[in-house]
Amino acid sequence: MHAYRSHTCGDLTAAHAGAEVRLSGWVHRVRDHGGVLFIDLRDHYGITQLLCDGDSPAFAALEAARAEWVIRIDGLVKLRDASLVNPKIATGAIEVYVRAVEVLGPAEELPLPVFGDQDYPEETRLTYRFLDLRREGLHANMMLRSNVVRSLRNRMWDAGFNEFQTPIITASSPEGARDFLVPSRLHPGKFYALPQAPQQFKQLIMVAGFDRYFQIAPCFRDEDPRADRSPTDFYQLDVEMSFVTQDDVFAAVQPVIQGIFEEFGGGREVSKVWPQISYADAMLWYGSDKPDLRNPIKMQVVSEHFAGSGFAIFAKLLENEGTEVRAIPAPTGGSRKFCDRMNAFAQAQGLPGMGYIFWRKAEDGTMEAAGPLAKNIGPERTEAIRLQLGLGEGDAAFFLGGKPEQFEAVAGRARNEIGRELGLTEENCFRFAWIVDFPMYEKDDQGKIDFSHNPFSMPQGGLEALMGDPLKVKAYQYDLACNGYELISGGIRNHKPEIMFKAFELAGYPASEVENRFGGMVKAFRYGAPPHGGCAAGIDRIVMLLADEQNIREVIMFPMNQQACDLMMGAPSEPMNEQLRELRLRVVPKD
Amino acid sequence: MHAYRSHTCGDLTAAHAGAEVRLSGWVHRVRDHGGVLFIDLRDHYGITQLLCDGDSPAFAALEAARAEWVIRIDGLVKLRDASLVNPKIATGAIEVYVRAVEVLGPAEELPLPVFGDQDYPEETRLTYRFLDLRREGLHANMMLRSNVVRSLRNRMWDAGFNEFQTPIITASSPEGARDFLVPSRLHPGKFYALPQAPQQFKQLIMVAGFDRYFQIAPCFRDEDPRADRSPTDFYQLDVEMSFVTQDDVFAAVQPVIQGIFEEFGGGREVSKVWPQISYADAMLWYGSDKPDLRNPIKMQVVSEHFAGSGFAIFAKLLENEGTEVRAIPAPTGGSRKFCDRMNAFAQAQGLPGMGYIFWRKAEDGTMEAAGPLAKNIGPERTEAIRLQLGLGEGDAAFFLGGKPEQFEAVAGRARNEIGRELGLTEENCFRFAWIVDFPMYEKDDQGKIDFSHNPFSMPQGGLEALMGDPLKVKAYQYDLACNGYELISGGIRNHKPEIMFKAFELAGYPASEVENRFGGMVKAFRYGAPPHGGCAAGIDRIVMLLADEQNIREVIMFPMNQQACDLMMGAPSEPMNEQLRELRLRVVPKD
Repeated sequence: MHAYRSHTCGDLTAAHAGAEVRLSGWVHRVRDHGGVLFIDLRDHYGITQLLCDGDSPAFAALEAARAEWVIRIDGLVKLRDASLVNPKIATGAIEVYVRAVEVLGPAEELPLPVFGDQDYPEETRLTYRFLDLRREGLHANMMLRSNVVRSLRNRMWDAGFNEFQTPIITASSPEGARDFLVPSRLHPGKFYALPQAPQQFKQLIMVAGFDRYFQIAPCFRDEDPRADRSPTDFYQLDVEMSFVTQDDVFAAVQPVIQGIFEEFGGGREVSKVWPQISYADAMLWYGSDKPDLRNPIKMQVVSEHFAGSGFAIFAKLLENEGTEVRAIPAPTGGSRKFCDRMNAFAQAQGLPGMGYIFWRKAEDGTMEAAGPLAKNIGPERTEAIRLQLGLGEGDAAFFLGGKPEQFEAVAGRARNEIGRELGLTEENCFRFAWIVDFPMYEKDDQGKIDFSHNPFSMPQGGLEALMGDPLKVKAYQYDLACNGYELISGGIRNHKPEIMFKAFELAGYPASEVENRFGGMVKAFRYGAPPHGGCAAGIDRIVMLLADEQNIREVIMFPMNQQACDLMMGAPSEPMNEQLRELRLRVVPKD
Repeated sequence: MHAYRSHTCGDLTAAHAGAEVRLSGWVHRVRDHGGVLFIDLRDHYGITQLLCDGDSPAFAALEAARAEWVIRIDGLVKLRDASLVNPKIATGAIEVYVRAVEVLGPAEELPLPVFGDQDYPEETRLTYRFLDLRREGLHANMMLRSNVVRSLRNRMWDAGFNEFQTPIITASSPEGARDFLVPSRLHPGKFYALPQAPQQFKQLIMVAGFDRYFQIAPCFRDEDPRADRSPTDFYQLDVEMSFVTQDDVFAAVQPVIQGIFEEFGGGREVSKVWPQISYADAMLWYGSDKPDLRNPIKMQVVSEHFAGSGFAIFAKLLENEGTEVRAIPAPTGGSRKFCDRMNAFAQAQGLPGMGYIFWRKAEDGTMEAAGPLAKNIGPERTEAIRLQLGLGEGDAAFFLGGKPEQFEAVAGRARNEIGRELGLTEENCFRFAWIVDFPMYEKDDQGKIDFSHNPFSMPQGGLEALMGDPLKVKAYQYDLACNGYELISGGIRNHKPEIMFKAFELAGYPASEVENRFGGMVKAFRYGAPPHGGCAAGIDRIVMLLADEQNIREVIMFPMNQQACDLMMGAPSEPMNEQLRELRLRVVPKD
């Protein structure tokens, strides 16, 4: 017989009754029923119930076993009494009567139990990650992640993509975050960088003539930690294609992502038609470039009804250029109590408040509009607003005015809150949309023109478009939004050096700096570059959505804590003097 | 029609004759036959011949096109004249008559041609890697690598393994090479390390209860560059299993590796039976722990025939303890010329020379033994040697004496040389063997006991074995040898803290240092560790063997040069002062 097991702990069924078997695993739970031991033995594959009484030569040894000891047992498979059969587990029809036992790995007293689902402080969980990972939920999350990545790969291969590995110890490849640096021993004083993304390499792979690339790629950004972000390394499904338009990228990627959500979504509905929504529309309708489309609420511009109206605040505000009044329709929200609560929400978010109108049954049985706004603008304008928004009795609408960029974000959050509070937001589904036509540039706080997203995207209209107002230039740059999260970001790339230099010039980067920072790629574009584009999907985020987890550390095997420390392994740590000497580095004391 | 292509350059066959098509690709070759242009248009999928004459409105534009320009053409598919059909390429039956052309990406004068197979200096090839990668051989190598990795993954999944990603920015995990360090910005003065291998993490995954792990894992070792080694990052197929013996690991891994070599070996024969050879036997028989078994020569100990013989050098030498005389049989090597050449080979390798005997037909038609050695030891001993080695007329044998560790390596190289020179070494095949029972310890140059291989391997005989002579302890430690290369290395791990501390103590490491260096793993072993083991296979080496390449840079997409510089991307480079300030680091000037 095999040294450790004839079967796994998930194998044995009624068909094995009478068989002599050998099992190995962890002691999951021990129950001592007065001289009869019941032990749940656990391995990766399942749980098998062991039974041992005083007649067994193994009794004394087994009685000593504690939770999470690793043991090997030999025993006889017996059918359980019909009343004791557990149909919920694969091995629920049998138990194993233990005749011999060997302790393979004893356990000290546990800082964190494996059996049960009591909550423990994250510091304990991360320090003893190897115990936490034995728990059912985290074990399932890791298997989900492994299977999602496997399926992603298979789907990409089946779609004609090839996976290529790009360098990890390489040159700086700025993507807007900080680089992790790696000092060079062979060239002291010089440093490598870990890639924030394989952006330049995947574009070089296209220039090198490989048509369809993907990679489950590790990415490295030295960012300040957040719950939904790993402070060190994370993985993305990185994709690039040659000779494609934006729609080709969408057509290649949708079946992959949709398939993953259908396969691993646990039956939650997955939208089959993915609308393309312009960035401008997304901001107007949803107050977000990653809208949650499970929420049916769509905001509208209602400026005309307030211009010159009796509601002085909005009427006055609309006299300034670039201002608007927008409405958030709230079907079924037609009560003062609800409207006041949403108004308070807006105030908590830093706005002076949200005006509202709601429609209710008047004492005479007709419908009437209520709220201070309705009074101020009068019945005709109120009715025009109601008709535009398609609302009726029992509904409400909220109003925000000013320069859109000043209230859009709050409007978006209010929309979320309203949808949730009123139960309008669908549950158990995944709603996808491509957000397209991102602006190429934006003004930063100092009024300086800068790239608003990826500087490598092709401006729509090419070189000619760059000769006009930069703030009007749209890029072939897109995101995939799902349930309020950004799952994917991508673009059709700028493969023409002259357009690239012009694009950077507008953002204030002289040609010398472009050559200096992206020299490898720019040089390549001078030797026959194909039009190309692609995207990158966040693996951690996809798994979080599928596993319904809010914290990225629940879907990573060995995560850092929020201070970017590995509590289990003790990283980072002090280097040895010898190491610093070889690298010709000195740590500057804190002043 | 699609903006760039209706078909790829590998699609069109006689069935498409008469179709209007659009193609995009690189101008591979231009031939101007007096007013008629023939252009080979190339993409990832193939080459299509374009034709254009003065009647075409595209003629002027196409005439300007140079090698490696990226163009898009519209045209009509025509059957080639029967005499011009090229059966070697998929599109050899047709050509496309060009009516319109668009230049998508022009190319400057090429520093390195893509068409043709002229050799170029490696510096040029690495600086313009994106051009070099367009060449047929390198393109094919990259596709081979991609397909090998894909197949490895599928085979591992099919065998019930799950892939898990382990941290890259982590704690030091010493594997005998130097770590790459990553300074921490959030914890200035402290450093992360990039893993030399995921050794500790994969063992922790076993302790966490995942039964069968694999990963195509990036590994990082700051080593001085060599032709067959990447100076920064490289990939291994990393494998670990719980509740297994050494034979279980072999049984799991052989089908995967054998399958890969059968699938991608280009018809070269792959051995189906993989012998297990002890380290001691491998050193004796082959003079190497990674023997080339395509070579049938097996060395033997022949000390008894020289002890007390008339050949004073060996006879005297054998009076010292620990000495041996070994023979390298050389079937068909029975000429003085050959024997002298091999003797010179040994001298060039730093030995005083190799004694030899060869057997030839004497003038009287009988067989006679020739060479100085035969004379010295006399006919009886000579004949006994011949019988032991199973040699006959026309054969030879070479002899080396001393302490085996002093001549084994040269004996191994001489064996290779003899096998090759005599044409005894098989070609077009892959011969595998597991090398097992590696010694746990060895004496270093100072006579100190140290680990000879992986300190994490379980000593055969457990704690008890560690109480005796350390140099006699064998480890559950194994390699897979193929054609003279080490493809895989692995072991059954030491999962018992008390045995681990003892093992390290013998090698001179106090418990405190074990806790300090491997604390995360050792702690985990105290909370219920399963017996486990595994191995790691070098991906680059596997692809090199399959592609028949000698240089690792031929199988890596974007390799470093021998000085660990990326000539294309310009890495490593000077950091910005701001970066060093954030990390609280200062570069110490050269003294």
